[in-house]
Amino acid sequence: MTAEIICVGTELLLGDILNSNSQYLARQLAMLGIPHYYQTVVGDNVERLKLAIATAIDRGAKILIFTGGLGPTPDDLTGETIAAFFETPLVERPEVLADIQAKYAQRGRTMNPTNRKQAFSPNGSTILPNPIGTAPGIIWHPRPDLTIMTFPGVPMEMHRMWEETAVPYLKGLGWGEQAIYSRTLKFWGIGESALVEKIPEVFEYTNPTVAPYAGKGLVKLRISTCASSLEDANEAIAPVEQQIRSVIGELCFGVDDETLADATSQLLLKRGHTLSVAESCTGGGLGSFITSIPGSSAYFKGGAITYSNEVKTSVLGVNSEDLQQYGAVSAPVAEQMAQGVQKLLGSDWALSITGIAGPGGGSEEKPVGLVYIGLALPNGEVTHSRHLFGATLERSVIRQYTQFSALDSLRKHLIKL
Amino acid sequence: MTAEIICVGTELLLGDILNSNSQYLARQLAMLGIPHYYQTVVGDNVERLKLAIATAIDRGAKILIFTGGLGPTPDDLTGETIAAFFETPLVERPEVLADIQAKYAQRGRTMNPTNRKQAFSPNGSTILPNPIGTAPGIIWHPRPDLTIMTFPGVPMEMHRMWEETAVPYLKGLGWGEQAIYSRTLKFWGIGESALVEKIPEVFEYTNPTVAPYAGKGLVKLRISTCASSLEDANEAIAPVEQQIRSVIGELCFGVDDETLADATSQLLLKRGHTLSVAESCTGGGLGSFITSIPGSSAYFKGGAITYSNEVKTSVLGVNSEDLQQYGAVSAPVAEQMAQGVQKLLGSDWALSITGIAGPGGGSEEKPVGLVYIGLALPNGEVTHSRHLFGATLERSVIRQYTQFSALDSLRKHLIKL
Repeated sequence: MTAEIICVGTELLLGDILNSNSQYLARQLAMLGIPHYYQTVVGDNVERLKLAIATAIDRGAKILIFTGGLGPTPDDLTGETIAAFFETPLVERPEVLADIQAKYAQRGRTMNPTNRKQAFSPNGSTILPNPIGTAPGIIWHPRPDLTIMTFPGVPMEMHRMWEETAVPYLKGLGWGEQAIYSRTLKFWGIGESALVEKIPEVFEYTNPTVAPYAGKGLVKLRISTCASSLEDANEAIAPVEQQIRSVIGELCFGVDDETLADATSQLLLKRGHTLSVAESCTGGGLGSFITSIPGSSAYFKGGAITYSNEVKTSVLGVNSEDLQQYGAVSAPVAEQMAQGVQKLLGSDWALSITGIAGPGGGSEEKPVGLVYIGLALPNGEVTHSRHLFGATLERSVIRQYTQFSALDSLRKHLIKL
Repeated sequence: MTAEIICVGTELLLGDILNSNSQYLARQLAMLGIPHYYQTVVGDNVERLKLAIATAIDRGAKILIFTGGLGPTPDDLTGETIAAFFETPLVERPEVLADIQAKYAQRGRTMNPTNRKQAFSPNGSTILPNPIGTAPGIIWHPRPDLTIMTFPGVPMEMHRMWEETAVPYLKGLGWGEQAIYSRTLKFWGIGESALVEKIPEVFEYTNPTVAPYAGKGLVKLRISTCASSLEDANEAIAPVEQQIRSVIGELCFGVDDETLADATSQLLLKRGHTLSVAESCTGGGLGSFITSIPGSSAYFKGGAITYSNEVKTSVLGVNSEDLQQYGAVSAPVAEQMAQGVQKLLGSDWALSITGIAGPGGGSEEKPVGLVYIGLALPNGEVTHSRHLFGATLERSVIRQYTQFSALDSLRKHLIKL
């Protein structure tokens, strides 16, 4: 018993809008444990929509979920095309018409004549009420083994209808008793293939399954299982998570929605320590990332954006001879920046960043993507790390990787305390 | 001659990621005038991917565009499945292998053995080079009347490959002779409906057409026309742009990809002036936005992230009695922050930000979303503006609006010089 998602709308084929509906529905189907193997996007066109329906049925889908094409204008023809496909007449629903008229009255307006078509649905179908807009959906069994569900394309309306009517309906059919639960481990400082080679055996598992994802320098391992409760799922996932962590160790910085800023934030709060930053090539991006977390004022004092060399010296006390001898992108300057801001703001820890984000400014000796990160410790020591992010990366990506690496270097020191 | 987009990835079926690739490709196909009537999403599964290929060919597609599944891990099988579908062997490309090894070397690492599979492609296909990552795509004619193009799923890589190789290739085949050209005017400080009401007549035009878009506080007007050259398009678009600008004036800060940071950057460069920033609730985000532009060191000196009150006083010299009397989020503090950083860094202009980004920290008198922006001028004067962005907005959105407003206040001063 599989489902297919069919998103209808010429605006999707023109790229005018992003198809967030398919992601929403995909996630919802996964949570209910309803398998789905294909998604289709098709325009507002009768013959092509009919072909999309036929294709989905041929592929064995038993639940067809449509979004879009339920509006009042002539190009909205999802409802009538579905009815025509199954050779079923449309009938007018007085209660839907009354609802549409009431919604117009609420806004002090009278219904447009064109809205009347939204009150028609295939004979034998059940109305899926729209609590917000004028376009209701349907739940319909045109054949005993086939379920059709339609939703408007407006995400806000679709979400409410899905949650309030479709989910209870699907649960009533027995779906969702077994659902897919997952936990995503997040890594920084290791590539996808290197990670896979360290623990090849886990990717052979069938329950839970483990799948790697990579993007923007982060690697993720998603551990998924089908279970009848969150507790059962956790029980199945925990030993696999333990196994991965025992091999990969501290490279795993968090789970699910946790960022590197969250991870360091929790560690700083636990120790009661404060942090400041000195940024050159990231221009404030590290501070911005740290303060993306509400309540960061508890541990973040602030920082210095020292974009020019003269400011590195005047504000942070970086030795101007070292700046000349080693250059702004160098280990001594990174360390002096960190110590300078630590002293200026009186923080326990201080991170500094100096690098070449490109696209210009690189040389053979110091290519684009070269970054030094300094870290001043509470005990007065200072250290640094050198990174080569690769000259082919975009400026924004080099800057983001730099911020991640800086927080990760702090994190690795904090977890050892 | 129609195209189909086939996005491959189980993560899409699980709803783990948003399918932005299909929107990008849809827009690109529209610009080239290549019709496409269907998009398919399918998982990393050999049989289902084969069925998706067969379905697209049955529907009459002559150009199949694939994204995803070109990575180094065992679940990445788009390349080999396409080859298998057309019963064609994979061959190793020494030049691709060398490129992958060089990319690893650039980052000071050695290639993982699993990456070797990325050097294989169907016999007879042409490599579509990946300037950023290790996954090349292909352009291939497995049959005389069929074109296959593959791209990695990472959007940044796919965009570069599309623009640098696929577009010239498709143009060489005669596509894009009549293409849709557009110019987008961007506005800050006016809502969509207010803008539309100021110039209602332009939305009736049929060539060029004018369409409004809104999102993240920016309003855009897209002027589009179908033309056989950029010159012809510009000739059609220019009078409409002029008409809009003559009514809306300085609220239009830029066109197409220009940001508010670009707009102020150009003005500062023109005047030979420098800028510094003092940030509280944005935590460095304004500096990060300004330095997102390569070459910003020509006018940006740096800044101070003064997240705590004590740092506002110790680093920027904000009067501690004013801090107590008026609070950190107040006009006097905003003005003193701007003057303090202007003096500290010796810049011509200085912007400051102090506000309540939420979700906590608001009060009846000073609600979440209240922000003061200070601006210190080259002549020694200082001014401020007060903004209420609304307590229902998310922290990240309030911070972004604040950055935009700060740059826009500087821009409005600079254009008057």
